[in-house]
Amino acid sequence: MTARYDVQALRRFASGCLLRLGADQEEADILADGLAEGQLRSVIYSNQGFVRVAVYARRVRAGGLRVRAPMRVVQEGPATALFDGANGFGQVAATRAMRIAIEKAKSAGAGAVGVVNSNHFGQASYYGMMAAREGCIGVAVTNASPEIPVSGGAEPMIGTNPWGIAAPTAGDPFVLDLSNAAAGRGAIRHRALRGESVPHGWALDAEGRPTTEPAAALEGLVAPMGGYKGVAITVMMDVLAGVLTGAAFGAAVGSPYEAARPQRVGHFMLAVDISRFIAPETFHERMRSLAGELRDGRRAPGIERLFVPGEPELERRTTAMAEGCELRPEVVGDLESLGAELGVDFPRPLSASC
Amino acid sequence: MTARYDVQALRRFASGCLLRLGADQEEADILADGLAEGQLRSVIYSNQGFVRVAVYARRVRAGGLRVRAPMRVVQEGPATALFDGANGFGQVAATRAMRIAIEKAKSAGAGAVGVVNSNHFGQASYYGMMAAREGCIGVAVTNASPEIPVSGGAEPMIGTNPWGIAAPTAGDPFVLDLSNAAAGRGAIRHRALRGESVPHGWALDAEGRPTTEPAAALEGLVAPMGGYKGVAITVMMDVLAGVLTGAAFGAAVGSPYEAARPQRVGHFMLAVDISRFIAPETFHERMRSLAGELRDGRRAPGIERLFVPGEPELERRTTAMAEGCELRPEVVGDLESLGAELGVDFPRPLSASC
Repeated sequence: MTARYDVQALRRFASGCLLRLGADQEEADILADGLAEGQLRSVIYSNQGFVRVAVYARRVRAGGLRVRAPMRVVQEGPATALFDGANGFGQVAATRAMRIAIEKAKSAGAGAVGVVNSNHFGQASYYGMMAAREGCIGVAVTNASPEIPVSGGAEPMIGTNPWGIAAPTAGDPFVLDLSNAAAGRGAIRHRALRGESVPHGWALDAEGRPTTEPAAALEGLVAPMGGYKGVAITVMMDVLAGVLTGAAFGAAVGSPYEAARPQRVGHFMLAVDISRFIAPETFHERMRSLAGELRDGRRAPGIERLFVPGEPELERRTTAMAEGCELRPEVVGDLESLGAELGVDFPRPLSASC
Repeated sequence: MTARYDVQALRRFASGCLLRLGADQEEADILADGLAEGQLRSVIYSNQGFVRVAVYARRVRAGGLRVRAPMRVVQEGPATALFDGANGFGQVAATRAMRIAIEKAKSAGAGAVGVVNSNHFGQASYYGMMAAREGCIGVAVTNASPEIPVSGGAEPMIGTNPWGIAAPTAGDPFVLDLSNAAAGRGAIRHRALRGESVPHGWALDAEGRPTTEPAAALEGLVAPMGGYKGVAITVMMDVLAGVLTGAAFGAAVGSPYEAARPQRVGHFMLAVDISRFIAPETFHERMRSLAGELRDGRRAPGIERLFVPGEPELERRTTAMAEGCELRPEVVGDLESLGAELGVDFPRPLSASC
């Protein structure tokens, strides 16, 4: 039994909780917007979106995450900066860092900004889309607590280290947003708990062997996307977001679920100003042409439509804006409890469905 | 029956052929070095390495590729440049572009360089490693002629668009080098021709459906790495290398095997100066620590070693330097014919094996 909720009501709820936790208005606004976008674009079993308010609240209360953290630029050059997130909200640090990257891109053509001492930042593509709105191609990378073994390994050694890239068009941007897991633990659990076999390549058992058995997958490890290729990608993302910035890296990155411990996450943001390479109108025209080619390609049997990157998520967003965001019962329970504790009313559902 | 050849002898052969084709000494040196590195790091059924000399020679003779092409910087800013490859050798354009990216990184902290009017450039990681030798993290992206459908598609729509990232250590760099295909056509053919079933996820049949049947895979399409995630990656790589630079993109990128037609390939190079973020010695120390963690992790049953990105390729290189490069008979045949035509002696094998 799931129910749908108006996104603006959820946004106000999230913002209200954050203010009660001591966040300032700018922090609350950034987080509410980031969580709303994550929620609107995600599938029901995702752990992106408003569910994170409860996770962040536990961290703030346990001292693992600071509100009103004294973030600052540590050092900068014409096309780079290192930004200290001061153990504040990842979304706030990442938003400020991407703003700097965009400024650098406007003045120098490209801006690469590292973030140290940060926390979970939500969806990587959110920051890429900030850059796309400013006529840049935007790239955002984060590291994360260990979930994936390297090829042949049998324990979590490295995070799924999500990354996003967004490129503008005359309309909606092309958006890549992914973790380097073949599938998230949420998706594996979703199948396994229904007794369905887990697709080839998604999971490893506790000994590190590929498995499609639901029980073995639940007890086992997340497999990398694309085998050894995904391992190489996720390691290099950790080099950019973790090793380069001075943040934790590898197995030392903290879990968002250990409430009292700073995660010491790092991020890497890149903005590249399109106008330094090609006239923006020409770029838009070329993007339109590429989108048309990809959408109009020959389809496999039973396939109704072909998509460009980010299009399925954008359509989920449009539906959720119109019909409300669907929340799992346990998410609603978490948020209702949080609201009761903080004295913020959780909104009523728009409707209930199965 | 394969034979091994001394890499220096092969390098001299390649350089000699290129000079006879009209290349200048710098072009011949860049190509011979790039092809040697590709050869040394590749598996036997790869199409990287010296086999490309014959492909390039056909293109030069058919007018599809220019020697001594008048390459030039079209426009530049503090952290960016657009470089015109003038339909010359991809390796030469990419090497010059990465040199510019490194210079920009040294002066501004980051350098992003687009390349237009280029051709096949060999292994992407070669250019990343150029940056790593200069204390930078280097990223190189190329687009390529269409081989992969988007998810649900049934025809080649987009290239495998290889990319590479290299990051320095106190010793050998971490190196990511991959195409966005699950496996190359060479690897699929290698299995299929021996009648072996093709691993899950590698191939699609001619209708776009996943297949493990050797015959269907041979007649079908290359599958993206990691399903829809690999599709998104390869599309965004085309946006960076193709759409942004003014090069061809999508299905319009020319094949290296159409000898008379300029490929109109584009590349995107990025160099980020590590010292703008962290002291290089500290970075090296952190890389050493990450490498140790990954290598020393718990192993799955039957696994003898765990690797960091680029290590298997580096070990292949070490072996091939000591024992010679192994070439397939058809590659030797191609190169011997080319040598005979151009009056350049193909070297004798070091040994023959099965």
